[in-house]
Amino acid sequence: MIVVMKSGASQEQIDRVVENIEQLGLRSHVIVGTERTVIAALGEKRDGAKQSLERVPGVDKVVPILAPFKMASTEVKRERTEVASGALRVGGKKVSVIAGPCSVESRAQILEIAHFVKEAGGSGLRGGAFKPRTSPYSFQGLKEKGLELLALAREETGLAVVTEVMAPDQVPLVARYADVLQVGARNMQNYPLLEAVGETDRAVLLKRGPSATIEEFLLAAEYILKTGNTRVMLCERGIRTFEDHTRFTLPLATVPYLHQTTHLPVVVDPSHGTGKADLVAVMARAAVAAEADALMIEIHPNPEKAMSDGFQALRFDAFRELMADCRRVAEAIGREM
Amino acid sequence: MIVVMKSGASQEQIDRVVENIEQLGLRSHVIVGTERTVIAALGEKRDGAKQSLERVPGVDKVVPILAPFKMASTEVKRERTEVASGALRVGGKKVSVIAGPCSVESRAQILEIAHFVKEAGGSGLRGGAFKPRTSPYSFQGLKEKGLELLALAREETGLAVVTEVMAPDQVPLVARYADVLQVGARNMQNYPLLEAVGETDRAVLLKRGPSATIEEFLLAAEYILKTGNTRVMLCERGIRTFEDHTRFTLPLATVPYLHQTTHLPVVVDPSHGTGKADLVAVMARAAVAAEADALMIEIHPNPEKAMSDGFQALRFDAFRELMADCRRVAEAIGREM
Amino acid sequence: MIVVMKSGASQEQIDRVVENIEQLGLRSHVIVGTERTVIAALGEKRDGAKQSLERVPGVDKVVPILAPFKMASTEVKRERTEVASGALRVGGKKVSVIAGPCSVESRAQILEIAHFVKEAGGSGLRGGAFKPRTSPYSFQGLKEKGLELLALAREETGLAVVTEVMAPDQVPLVARYADVLQVGARNMQNYPLLEAVGETDRAVLLKRGPSATIEEFLLAAEYILKTGNTRVMLCERGIRTFEDHTRFTLPLATVPYLHQTTHLPVVVDPSHGTGKADLVAVMARAAVAAEADALMIEIHPNPEKAMSDGFQALRFDAFRELMADCRRVAEAIGREM
Amino acid sequence: MIVVMKSGASQEQIDRVVENIEQLGLRSHVIVGTERTVIAALGEKRDGAKQSLERVPGVDKVVPILAPFKMASTEVKRERTEVASGALRVGGKKVSVIAGPCSVESRAQILEIAHFVKEAGGSGLRGGAFKPRTSPYSFQGLKEKGLELLALAREETGLAVVTEVMAPDQVPLVARYADVLQVGARNMQNYPLLEAVGETDRAVLLKRGPSATIEEFLLAAEYILKTGNTRVMLCERGIRTFEDHTRFTLPLATVPYLHQTTHLPVVVDPSHGTGKADLVAVMARAAVAAEADALMIEIHPNPEKAMSDGFQALRFDAFRELMADCRRVAEAIGREM
Repeated sequence: MIVVMKSGASQEQIDRVVENIEQLGLRSHVIVGTERTVIAALGEKRDGAKQSLERVPGVDKVVPILAPFKMASTEVKRERTEVASGALRVGGKKVSVIAGPCSVESRAQILEIAHFVKEAGGSGLRGGAFKPRTSPYSFQGLKEKGLELLALAREETGLAVVTEVMAPDQVPLVARYADVLQVGARNMQNYPLLEAVGETDRAVLLKRGPSATIEEFLLAAEYILKTGNTRVMLCERGIRTFEDHTRFTLPLATVPYLHQTTHLPVVVDPSHGTGKADLVAVMARAAVAAEADALMIEIHPNPEKAMSDGFQALRFDAFRELMADCRRVAEAIGREM
Repeated sequence: MIVVMKSGASQEQIDRVVENIEQLGLRSHVIVGTERTVIAALGEKRDGAKQSLERVPGVDKVVPILAPFKMASTEVKRERTEVASGALRVGGKKVSVIAGPCSVESRAQILEIAHFVKEAGGSGLRGGAFKPRTSPYSFQGLKEKGLELLALAREETGLAVVTEVMAPDQVPLVARYADVLQVGARNMQNYPLLEAVGETDRAVLLKRGPSATIEEFLLAAEYILKTGNTRVMLCERGIRTFEDHTRFTLPLATVPYLHQTTHLPVVVDPSHGTGKADLVAVMARAAVAAEADALMIEIHPNPEKAMSDGFQALRFDAFRELMADCRRVAEAIGREM
Repeated sequence: MIVVMKSGASQEQIDRVVENIEQLGLRSHVIVGTERTVIAALGEKRDGAKQSLERVPGVDKVVPILAPFKMASTEVKRERTEVASGALRVGGKKVSVIAGPCSVESRAQILEIAHFVKEAGGSGLRGGAFKPRTSPYSFQGLKEKGLELLALAREETGLAVVTEVMAPDQVPLVARYADVLQVGARNMQNYPLLEAVGETDRAVLLKRGPSATIEEFLLAAEYILKTGNTRVMLCERGIRTFEDHTRFTLPLATVPYLHQTTHLPVVVDPSHGTGKADLVAVMARAAVAAEADALMIEIHPNPEKAMSDGFQALRFDAFRELMADCRRVAEAIGREM
Repeated sequence: MIVVMKSGASQEQIDRVVENIEQLGLRSHVIVGTERTVIAALGEKRDGAKQSLERVPGVDKVVPILAPFKMASTEVKRERTEVASGALRVGGKKVSVIAGPCSVESRAQILEIAHFVKEAGGSGLRGGAFKPRTSPYSFQGLKEKGLELLALAREETGLAVVTEVMAPDQVPLVARYADVLQVGARNMQNYPLLEAVGETDRAVLLKRGPSATIEEFLLAAEYILKTGNTRVMLCERGIRTFEDHTRFTLPLATVPYLHQTTHLPVVVDPSHGTGKADLVAVMARAAVAAEADALMIEIHPNPEKAMSDGFQALRFDAFRELMADCRRVAEAIGREM
């Protein structure tokens, strides 16, 4: 850490900072500048030291030097992590595709979609059984029945099942059926849930919260890693900004930035990231060009009749076209799909 | 709902919208304008109808007419709700103050603070026993031991205990000790948790998520109300914006806007809302002037030594001054404190 | 427009809205719903009518039906506009590249860069002569001397010169040297400047302001179009959000959305859009995949010694690689480069 | 500045940073930490040094120590600046009020309003003659005729005239009529305009841009101060965020933060800051409690008929009540009004 004193800070204040640094078990190093004094604290730990130094009188600000996450960092592990679960492999040369409906609605619906995803070249099947809905008056999902239908679809198609879990006490149930446990954007900082999925042997797809910084996102992943589960995929699904022509703003620079910062693979969800069916395909292509390791796409045979989020689901023909377009872009940048 | 067709939409497309509206059990009413056609759907329900209409070809947008929340709305209940729990009453003429440390750290700490809060005129004691921390390497709270200490502090001072609950399965435990269950900002859309606190007989303090719209905030409250618990307080604690000189941006216009929109009482937390101890007192005053029903303030006898969030905690003397200033402002606008 | 009344609005209030609508020269159409009344105003004009109706007692909100821009809209002109200026053509099958330094620094610098851009396949040369700088203590550009050097570079290479103009009274001078007048992000709503460039016969590159909605962006373009200059290119260069790992957030969904909404061509500037040299190339590729009509890239032979914005400028070798990568992506989506 | 090297940076990279620092005329000081090396650059200047160091290989980030503004800073001048112009004094014990219509519409309108403002206790008259309007199809102001009417209103009432200037070449004209030159939010970073008002002897009211950081805001003020005009008032008028229930988000913590950071007086505009007439009065009170030095309020005798922004203008009776309420709050915090 670097402690920057206010201009005109007294020697007594500087001494107090030094004393505090030493009580924290760190070494201090005072540098007197022309207008201000700064004090380096060496041997930094990743904890509340910054905050306590910020309250010492005369301190202007405290600048951390180390990233606060460890296990997720490329500083600790340089080789990219590949997460494999059933038919799904994310993080290697191949760009994988997870597709499916927003919600599992019926046996016929999920089987029709699963067969189509398989045939179109996808390797994961998404579909909500427990649905977090903004309004208590909206359809909340088929719950365990939905999980059974997803498992049935896996049996018939071989696709890996990716589905959301909303509470720690649902984890054992969902883990019984799913290949990949999805932690939704609203739950990115639901720490008991992060620890609960961290205790399973299932792969985890962690969605970025709509107002989470990258640091917070990686610290959420760190909760899962620290609990013992290293099979974590990060999913960019759009952030909340002032823009109102899309449902969220999809910041694709997250993808290359995460690749520099973490070894974990990065998934992009252009369906939530735009919230508009007619923008999904173009943004899927752009995500592939930005080096996404996988795409997550909402599709529905009849979006007008979907029980949730029909406005952002692609019809089958549009999805087939998306796959062909993305495959060409993947090849153009030296990947497969 | 009002369905706005694209300019140049065909008669066939218009007919299909009308048909969809009628299948939803609503009446339709077509209005042909000079450049576009709009179709009113009468008898609106609060559910996914909007989304399904959005996917009909030729539709440009669908504008809802009704607010999606019901029980929280002043359309349903016009008189202001007053929430009382132990010594704490929020929503009447008096502006109440809930104060205390970020985390319960020890018996001596919480008792010293509680006695001070009581003497300074507060009626609620805040203090985290289960702490949601961004980093897994930060102090996570004393857990049940912390709850016991809070209950002890209540016994000695009569203050109502306000403390956070982080997961549905913690609710029975926390409810055994607390007067008010706090749902933190990170959990505003943790629906299983909202339902779990909705099933208790404890008052609930629901914090606004840092990127939640007011509509989402009220829909989160609606989850609690709908489950059967009507003793809900809403707490504005700052939103995430591009501003970097404060930890969050504290948008006080939320307060009068909520008073127009909902009958639930509104609490303001200027400690999290600014994240800087030296801005808290002024923003507390401004919150009172903006008609907050209560304030929630972090204090600590020695912020440099606090185990969490010391940078935003007020020292005792600063808090005493804050109380005096806020009292004068409260009286100036015809309230008490 | 659709005027939505509050629930419980009186007949008198409804009558007053109707009267106001008719005074505006529009026809009114009252629809009585189960919970609320809405009133359609037909024959809408693009002006302040919405705002005046919003103040009539009993009105909850007024929803416009028409987009407020006209000449920029695909409703008015469906064929894509191609803007050509010197060697630069933007909006056709070819993805064009405008590259160059942040600031023109010297004769040697701009000529070296221009020859390199030409050789690498670019068709426009960017370079600031008048520099808008956040701090008055930063380098402000070579001014007219810089313009002369840009013109010299054009002479030697044939590249089209793209350079910023900051004030209406600079327009004649800059137009004497430049092929394309750039209106910077800070000036997107500098209306006298928009009108001044609208009066020239030069192509205009209009940058999106960092907090401008798409509607405001297109209305700014509308100022230029309405003044009589139809050769306008729109440039997405990043918006301001809470993200702090990049300088701005680059929302590529702007590109396909603009293609749906306007016939004007769309340029993407990943240099400002990320503010980090090591993210530029990947985001350039993604922009091409998102159907950008042109890229605008900052390059510098020695970024450490650049007089401005060196942190986001690419070195020559990195730019050459970017061009090759983008060309492959362009071909993958059926375009050229 | 503090230069933080990446973990694993080579000695050669460290040497190159040291060399660069010395070429900039600064002294360097290398501190080898347990995981990383940091290098302090002493004798810091306020210019592009940070940016050039950021591009040296092996550098992770560069942290500035000094604020980039100087003349606006409390580090340079500790006593608060009071700006006086005609009847208006801003920055002393008294909280001043500037009120008036969005646009000057007619002689009768502006005189009626001016007399009312005077009688209600205001000391400044606002009113747009040159109007920056988002749409080219909206009313653009009466221009010079409007300025004449404002001067007439001053003659009759003694109020100071506050009006916007939009371009450098309008400055001499507007300065002939106005007491205070307003630089609008859209022009906060219009540097030629800032310099042009900096060259006059008129007081300046500088509005914060809707996405400007405080640092950018103060650097904009610095342009005016550096040009030679020290009579600058800063005006908070709301920032752009994801919130959609108000036109902008009004972040009142700006007020106490600016008072810590700069000696310039701070004005708050709750009319633009909320964009809703029924929130203005409460937020005006909150602004006074937050220590605003002045308020700027839009009023209109008949908002339904206003030619611009009627939705946020207060009627006369509401304004009279606002004045009474704010006066009580001002007195409660030891100020006058």
